[in-house]
Amino acid sequence: MLGNFVYENPTKIIFGKDSMAALSEELKKYGDKVQLIYGGGSIKKNGIYEQVLKALSDAGKTVVEDAGVMPNPTIEKLRDGIQIARDNDVDFLLAVGGGSCVDCAKAVAISVHCDEDPWQKYFVDFEEPDCEILPVGSVLTMVGTGSEMNGGSVISNHETAIKSGHVFGVDVFPKFAVMNPEFTYSVPQYQMVAGIYDIMNHIMEQYFSGDDDCASDYIMEGLMRSVINSARVAVADPKNYEARSNLMWDATWALNTFVSKGKPTDWEIHMLGQAISAHTDATHGMTLAAVTLPYYKHIMRFGVDKFVRFARNVWDVRLNHATDEEVALAGLQKLEEWMREIGLVMNITELGCDESMLEALADSTFVMTGGYHPLSREEIIEIFRASL
Amino acid sequence: MLGNFVYENPTKIIFGKDSMAALSEELKKYGDKVQLIYGGGSIKKNGIYEQVLKALSDAGKTVVEDAGVMPNPTIEKLRDGIQIARDNDVDFLLAVGGGSCVDCAKAVAISVHCDEDPWQKYFVDFEEPDCEILPVGSVLTMVGTGSEMNGGSVISNHETAIKSGHVFGVDVFPKFAVMNPEFTYSVPQYQMVAGIYDIMNHIMEQYFSGDDDCASDYIMEGLMRSVINSARVAVADPKNYEARSNLMWDATWALNTFVSKGKPTDWEIHMLGQAISAHTDATHGMTLAAVTLPYYKHIMRFGVDKFVRFARNVWDVRLNHATDEEVALAGLQKLEEWMREIGLVMNITELGCDESMLEALADSTFVMTGGYHPLSREEIIEIFRASL
Repeated sequence: MLGNFVYENPTKIIFGKDSMAALSEELKKYGDKVQLIYGGGSIKKNGIYEQVLKALSDAGKTVVEDAGVMPNPTIEKLRDGIQIARDNDVDFLLAVGGGSCVDCAKAVAISVHCDEDPWQKYFVDFEEPDCEILPVGSVLTMVGTGSEMNGGSVISNHETAIKSGHVFGVDVFPKFAVMNPEFTYSVPQYQMVAGIYDIMNHIMEQYFSGDDDCASDYIMEGLMRSVINSARVAVADPKNYEARSNLMWDATWALNTFVSKGKPTDWEIHMLGQAISAHTDATHGMTLAAVTLPYYKHIMRFGVDKFVRFARNVWDVRLNHATDEEVALAGLQKLEEWMREIGLVMNITELGCDESMLEALADSTFVMTGGYHPLSREEIIEIFRASL
Repeated sequence: MLGNFVYENPTKIIFGKDSMAALSEELKKYGDKVQLIYGGGSIKKNGIYEQVLKALSDAGKTVVEDAGVMPNPTIEKLRDGIQIARDNDVDFLLAVGGGSCVDCAKAVAISVHCDEDPWQKYFVDFEEPDCEILPVGSVLTMVGTGSEMNGGSVISNHETAIKSGHVFGVDVFPKFAVMNPEFTYSVPQYQMVAGIYDIMNHIMEQYFSGDDDCASDYIMEGLMRSVINSARVAVADPKNYEARSNLMWDATWALNTFVSKGKPTDWEIHMLGQAISAHTDATHGMTLAAVTLPYYKHIMRFGVDKFVRFARNVWDVRLNHATDEEVALAGLQKLEEWMREIGLVMNITELGCDESMLEALADSTFVMTGGYHPLSREEIIEIFRASL
């Protein structure tokens, strides 16, 4: 069943090969001073930067640069962005890049007109914005986080070894996203695959919870089947438009709040993964991949019916005369084969962790209660150990 | 793959047993004079009318009544509604009912401040509104059309025997919908089942088109599996909240523009069904049911791969050593069994049609070109004949 919920998602998506043509018109709806938020400069190599500047110029905008957003955006980078926006009295924030740039733009948007410390207010105390919020738009060049159509923002604080995410309300959602699948072609294979697994894991985090018959679970089964299929094609042929366009759209819907409506959700794998990133700065999707199988094998017994359903409806497991546990494990086996096939990192050792870090990793791990089994500290350590 | 598209859907959904509690606050965002658009008075029997009036009163609204919207709203009823809105200088239109009431409210919304004839402008010439559009909200009491979260409006003109639909842009979408699954309990079984098939058919109309690998098709497979399962439960136990809540949410997503994005769509079954309604005033969902199997059996050969996929992914058909045609037919067989099981009308004779009407039905049928095979007039007549 579906519990009580409110669904509202006003982000306008402009999707496809020709989507950049609409950017200039879209920008005209907003103020004159635009802060351009982007990453390490890859957009200057592949020509996207030039196209964005042209659209900004066509729309008559004054541009303020805010470059250098890193894969796990830091609180220091956020503070720099806030200062740039204040110094230049910026009207609009345009993120050009992947989820890190969009996340950072949202965090700037809710902090520019706020006197309090953004880290403490939003990422430690999890308060909601009570100030004027700057509008954000994005040109997406990497797929995975879904940040283009939600209110989520994840910021890392290396001083306290905490990577913390906050899902904000609809006022923080980007106003629009320009999504050209061809813009994702130049993402290195490692990053592409990490992004693909981020999509898959977003869906699984919302799927593995609840024991009722819920419309959202059926939709997620469809989404997962699409991701699995397109991932195989994209890994073999990264410039396959069909696969890349499907993955781009799947990613948006995996985390734009839709599939979680009316049901509980887990997110413990993200908590384990964020702990790894906080200590190693490892790529987000790979941190999730490294702990997925140890985690699911551990909690499977607490929600075996859903794991059986996952095996049957997502992986077409057809075992006759098998126990529920055998069917469930066969599903996880299929998942593992797919993960290895597309080239994911399957252990935390490869991400720079070792035995000596297990206690520290556990210290950085939040415990969630929406899944089939909330973890104890000992269980968290055992899951990290099983991933060494 | 996904072609170029724009997706934007700002309708706010307030869903669940407690959703009416939010209506008053939602109404406060809009003007003082509210036109209350509803049907034949069933909402007065089941207490929903009282609850709506209380919310309107709590929000300090002046209410103007516009009752008597019929199942296939007529151009005459629309003209009445426009007159009421003009006479009372109405600020907001609140539809309380099913898709007919919401469709009618949207048509009023785009006509009040328009000097041209609404039938000619919107439903014959298919022009877009170029006047001020009144905001619309809804309290949904019947499930099926998806009108609560899209820009569609279907109006019937019995003088010309044309039932015509127009899908308007985002400015015509309802601002909000209050969706309490319990409000659908008192819908008679015949209407409930017709609504369920309307959902299923909306998905199939968008699924049976294209021959590529498209994310939207996977999502529709999930949605269809949910509808099939919840329909069986709801027919046996109409007050099963789990099933009714799933059906309500599935209906919204079957036709809120999402699943059609980036792909072609068919809609020929709706054209055939609307021709039947124009001549008989039969219940919309039943008209679709009556022509579905003759239509799909006829066009199957032009898109057999998709029918094979439908059999396997939606109906779990697992035939070894079978031809594509055998698998595809087995899928349609499963569809037919489910349709009979839930009690749908399977022929147009039961809806009041006979052999003498075939030519007239064909005259009222629009031909669509997005599916696997555009129909000739002879084919249309043969499909209607096969449904006698």
